[in-house]
Amino acid sequence: MLETILNHRSIRKYKNTSINDNILNKVLDAAVRASTTGNMQVYSIVVTKDTEIKNKLWECHFKQDMVKQAPVVLTFCADFNRFNKWCEQRKAVPGYDNFLSFYTASIDALLAAQNATLAAEDFGLGVCYLGTTTYMAEKISETLDLPAHVVPVTTLVVGYPNEKPGLTDRLPVEGVVHAEKYKDYSQQDIDNIYKEKESLEFTQELIKENNTETLAQIFTDKRYIKKDNIAFSKSFLEFIQNKGFMNHED
Amino acid sequence: MLETILNHRSIRKYKNTSINDNILNKVLDAAVRASTTGNMQVYSIVVTKDTEIKNKLWECHFKQDMVKQAPVVLTFCADFNRFNKWCEQRKAVPGYDNFLSFYTASIDALLAAQNATLAAEDFGLGVCYLGTTTYMAEKISETLDLPAHVVPVTTLVVGYPNEKPGLTDRLPVEGVVHAEKYKDYSQQDIDNIYKEKESLEFTQELIKENNTETLAQIFTDKRYIKKDNIAFSKSFLEFIQNKGFMNHED
Repeated sequence: MLETILNHRSIRKYKNTSINDNILNKVLDAAVRASTTGNMQVYSIVVTKDTEIKNKLWECHFKQDMVKQAPVVLTFCADFNRFNKWCEQRKAVPGYDNFLSFYTASIDALLAAQNATLAAEDFGLGVCYLGTTTYMAEKISETLDLPAHVVPVTTLVVGYPNEKPGLTDRLPVEGVVHAEKYKDYSQQDIDNIYKEKESLEFTQELIKENNTETLAQIFTDKRYIKKDNIAFSKSFLEFIQNKGFMNHED
Repeated sequence: MLETILNHRSIRKYKNTSINDNILNKVLDAAVRASTTGNMQVYSIVVTKDTEIKNKLWECHFKQDMVKQAPVVLTFCADFNRFNKWCEQRKAVPGYDNFLSFYTASIDALLAAQNATLAAEDFGLGVCYLGTTTYMAEKISETLDLPAHVVPVTTLVVGYPNEKPGLTDRLPVEGVVHAEKYKDYSQQDIDNIYKEKESLEFTQELIKENNTETLAQIFTDKRYIKKDNIAFSKSFLEFIQNKGFMNHED
């Protein structure tokens, strides 16, 4: 178990090998064992294998090749649609068209996704999370026919790895863990925490490639730019509202 | 690995046994191996063992006994504070004071939490997620000294189990999984999916105890009530804004 967790790599190149249904079903069985708020299971998993639909998802996910290559794409959705329908069929009046319920359902979906990740890796499969899911939520929703009260939260591509990347570097554990209470970072703390990451050969190459002065500038100026973040914030919030999750009137 | 996942139970009663630092550190090592957006690691984990601080957290978490009983409380936070500070010390201008960045950081925190869960269970520990974290975010933030751009997302109590609960029921996997695209539920589908859950003896007892007509009414009228959901939606959104995550001006 621990070995699987410690050996996690995001896989971005896949073999042209399909996944046996028996294995895929076990991955999905694992996903639904994750904790879920009040055992409501307010999430859904869309399993896409069809080439045509995968091609549409590939367009949604910024045309990253791995979406086409991987035999299976799992879209994890915050989902109160099923639960609301059940309530309405059982003389109960659901009150889940609000932000808290959306966020709760997001938590459910994400814990299930991480279970699926580890189960898949245990079967020798590789996965990669697609952060583009929230950026392109509306287009993904159209592609997968998501109804009201269903919002895509994250996506996993799943398949047999066609690369063997090394472990990704991480900050020292002390850099992200706080004892008892949060201890805010001094300038010296920040220097210490990022020292190893900044001294990696890989980092030096990235800086040269991107023609920036520091690694941090690659994030702020190239990869996760303020202008994009604001645009995606607005479109995602609007999408959540359109899906019926922002009604806060008594 | 799969066995650990399939055997997950939420534990609500704990022995008075502390957790060896070596084991706890391995749980935290496992947490930081989870996927993180762009390898930014925009989350923090606050490890609370101190009785006095735990007592304050117990009050935040609706005085659930397990918060006092369990030797360790892990508060997982969406955290752009560290990353922003690093950017500012490296001549980079961070643009992460928006909703998308908050949501991205939440995803990071939740994947780390699920890794911690499975690693803990692999060591024979039990855990329980506390949904009260988002309801009481502001009070938790005060208790743990969380600065701007740090929002508590979920909490795990961790310790040695003093109960052996059975597996929690789940909807049939077909009920939460969709092939290729989302297939919306007919009235008959809903009846089929919830049939087994509704026929459980445990469900019948719950209905009697709560004096409702249906199981669904226990959720809508007793456990997750519209009025509370709206109040928590408003307070959580306001809190996210106060922490500096809702600035959407160019």
